Amino acid sequence: MMKWQEAWETLIELEKRTAQLGSIGSLIGWDEQVNLPKGSAELRAQQQAALGEATHRAASDPKIGECLDVLGEVASYLSAEQKVVVREARKDFDRATRIPSDFVRRREEAQSRSYHAWVTARKSGDFEEFLPHLKSQLTFAHLEAEYLEAEDPYDYWIDRFDPGMTADRIQSLFTPLLKELKPLVETITGADVELPQDTFRGFPVDSQETFLREVVKSMGFNFDRGRIDTAVHPFCSGHPLDCRMTTRFDPDNPLDSLSSAMHETGHGLYEQGLPEDWLDTPMAQAVGMAVHESQARLWENQIGRSRPFWKHWEPRYRELFSKQLSAVDSDTLYRTVNRVALTPIRVDADEVTYNLHIMLRFELEKQLFSGEIKAGELPEAWNAASKKFLGFEPANHSEGCLQDVHWATGAFGYFPSYCTGNMIAAQLWYQLRSELPKLDEQLASGDCKPILEWLRQKVHNKGRLHSTPELVQKISGEELSPRFLVRYLQERYLPLYRA
Amino acid sequence: MMKWQEAWETLIELEKRTAQLGSIGSLIGWDEQVNLPKGSAELRAQQQAALGEATHRAASDPKIGECLDVLGEVASYLSAEQKVVVREARKDFDRATRIPSDFVRRREEAQSRSYHAWVTARKSGDFEEFLPHLKSQLTFAHLEAEYLEAEDPYDYWIDRFDPGMTADRIQSLFTPLLKELKPLVETITGADVELPQDTFRGFPVDSQETFLREVVKSMGFNFDRGRIDTAVHPFCSGHPLDCRMTTRFDPDNPLDSLSSAMHETGHGLYEQGLPEDWLDTPMAQAVGMAVHESQARLWENQIGRSRPFWKHWEPRYRELFSKQLSAVDSDTLYRTVNRVALTPIRVDADEVTYNLHIMLRFELEKQLFSGEIKAGELPEAWNAASKKFLGFEPANHSEGCLQDVHWATGAFGYFPSYCTGNMIAAQLWYQLRSELPKLDEQLASGDCKPILEWLRQKVHNKGRLHSTPELVQKISGEELSPRFLVRYLQERYLPLYRA
Repeated sequence: MMKWQEAWETLIELEKRTAQLGSIGSLIGWDEQVNLPKGSAELRAQQQAALGEATHRAASDPKIGECLDVLGEVASYLSAEQKVVVREARKDFDRATRIPSDFVRRREEAQSRSYHAWVTARKSGDFEEFLPHLKSQLTFAHLEAEYLEAEDPYDYWIDRFDPGMTADRIQSLFTPLLKELKPLVETITGADVELPQDTFRGFPVDSQETFLREVVKSMGFNFDRGRIDTAVHPFCSGHPLDCRMTTRFDPDNPLDSLSSAMHETGHGLYEQGLPEDWLDTPMAQAVGMAVHESQARLWENQIGRSRPFWKHWEPRYRELFSKQLSAVDSDTLYRTVNRVALTPIRVDADEVTYNLHIMLRFELEKQLFSGEIKAGELPEAWNAASKKFLGFEPANHSEGCLQDVHWATGAFGYFPSYCTGNMIAAQLWYQLRSELPKLDEQLASGDCKPILEWLRQKVHNKGRLHSTPELVQKISGEELSPRFLVRYLQERYLPLYRA
Repeated sequence: MMKWQEAWETLIELEKRTAQLGSIGSLIGWDEQVNLPKGSAELRAQQQAALGEATHRAASDPKIGECLDVLGEVASYLSAEQKVVVREARKDFDRATRIPSDFVRRREEAQSRSYHAWVTARKSGDFEEFLPHLKSQLTFAHLEAEYLEAEDPYDYWIDRFDPGMTADRIQSLFTPLLKELKPLVETITGADVELPQDTFRGFPVDSQETFLREVVKSMGFNFDRGRIDTAVHPFCSGHPLDCRMTTRFDPDNPLDSLSSAMHETGHGLYEQGLPEDWLDTPMAQAVGMAVHESQARLWENQIGRSRPFWKHWEPRYRELFSKQLSAVDSDTLYRTVNRVALTPIRVDADEVTYNLHIMLRFELEKQLFSGEIKAGELPEAWNAASKKFLGFEPANHSEGCLQDVHWATGAFGYFPSYCTGNMIAAQLWYQLRSELPKLDEQLASGDCKPILEWLRQKVHNKGRLHSTPELVQKISGEELSPRFLVRYLQERYLPLYRA
């Protein structure tokens, strides 16, 4: 029998090995979307499959089980952080050993193919082209839940992204939120406010990139341990020590790439702030995707759409885009940054109506998993749900059920985290403001350090020490609730859209 | 007992898995030199180590040995290609099973650290900073040879890069070559030829890149299955289906990035032309590094420095660099492309004196491996050998023993391939010309297709079917010899430098 200290050291070594292989998968996934030659997709699918199998083999090494057995007997000797590592390592090990290697390999391969089919289908709008891949992703999702003997497959997937959450718990947050959102959206869409949307055209990409890099740097992103590049879909991946973010540029939609970049930087700052002593162990991971999203949203919305933020950045923005902004006054710029308008595309949505897009997807995921609708019926169901939540049907499937990458890569149960993340962002925001009374002045002088330090201390450095509800409770002294988000949206948007 | 067909299929599957993991290592190695944030080097070392271990585990899977045992009994049923796969898979398997996993992991980690230390040391010129890494790379090299029970460690490493070659065989090619080179270099350096070297300055990098991409494309490189980027050191890596090449740009040395790019494209074309039905098996690999180099050199030198090639490309070059070339006539441009001058830096050397740089390194490698000199004595030994082969000592270690990446990453025994590759390139060149009588006209009209087709058929598509000497013999009808290189250099350079 191993001594427990020896078991601990061995466990950490094995966890790091698995984490590092996983981070390579993340890196070559980034490369796939940033650098991959167009004829190399099939190869990349095979590479991901081979790596996925090797990672799975590392994660299911019987030595991990032996270490965990030893450590399970000595819980009282372990620190709080060590307990987290043992608890999460046990969950990961059980998942790894119950899912067959071959299944992992086939799924990895299918996912990469599905991703490329989705790219094509989204372009053409041809759902039938994508349907076999959606079906296969759903089958894989159900099979994994079965391997893990989950009571409910959808709850299984929600828990995978936000441990402790269920469809019912999410519904109990979404229902009161929807009740408050509806009148707010009605007020906004009913208001007679005109914005010079057509003015925000012809913003040269290189100047956009200059501005965006300055903002990202001022937020505190460490470019010595990360980068930002261009891809079809903005994302943040990699490793806390080599964080790879992407954004995209549209000369006629400059505020989109800016907010996307601030969003991804919020994710990146969380990753870069995870407890360094615990890197490549389960302690140095995000609590869950909702907290991850809260970090992205807080920077993108609460900060990036605020008056103090723009007080500092507007002069620089005008310097870079003097011609384009010549007819736009400060108030109009601020109103455009905070423009609310219903759109069929989630990633184009403002922070008010965004939540409706999530509720739409949550409803469809529930129906897909319960069997209430079949994969082939998704387009019709999407259109109906769009009518219900947004008030209109999309013009085509590219703007409808084909718009998101998530289902194409098997990420079911992920969407709700976006909305829960919005709630957490708002709840943290009010707490942050109460603890940093000079916040507005600091932001107005371009100083984001106090915010980053607060987030580092309260959220990032904690790693996985607390669960999502625990963390929110601990920081704000109150239970996770939609009411902070409602209050925030009302305070920010009613003054802009009141009739 | 498995049926042999089953053993064959299993073997292929396992070989592909290993090859794909290996190609990921190559990809993240490319990323390390093209994209890596400066603070992420230590992480990359750990990632390479974890991946190296996983790849090694895949390569030493006992199932491979079982398949090989079955297939060893039925050699008479196997096609020529299958025999190559079995032969090479056996060599790879023996190597993988005799070298411990832990050794591989430690070496991968050390190699990545050594690479980064070399980058720093080359900049500062501080050899002592690099010395511990050189020592550790030499120790790893000796240990590997011991694990494989090699009779001679240096011969082991030469054979790793060029199966069948030995230090003695290389010496027997280098000695007569040196004898012929000496008077040629003397004639050239004694000639009173002035070239407007200072005119080739201020060539904008973006126009250089435009020209270079046009040339690379015209050579037949498939950008749907590969890319070219910028890095400190030009190289070609990746996979036949996702070939990653690099070059570097210097506004004051435009011909260097062009010839580097043509060189790497020669490598890339070989990779892209390997037999597609055998990808990820030992059949679809280069014969060895000398043949690989021959492909690079043929495009870089025999073609890229020829009059017909420049007849086609000169107008475009002048179009892009009209200002810079206004005082340069056609003959001077051609002479500058074919400028021969002794320089301390191998990668800056012309194709005549380049061979002297290799002989210098070959001599030092022999001495390092025999123990005649110790790692710490390398700087002095380098300077002495430089005096002997080039006629002068380098100004500092950055221009001397620290100039190359090879030893920093453990690639001992690789250098001789460059010079052997030059010999093969010349030998193939004369054969190619005899079989394609309209070659000069085709090149002069920008048409490289006949050359690529010839190389595809004679070299690329053959994969590993023949050994290096066999392949040269088969194509040219003569034994591998330095005399074609001597003839080629005399024919090209004597008219330019004759007194």
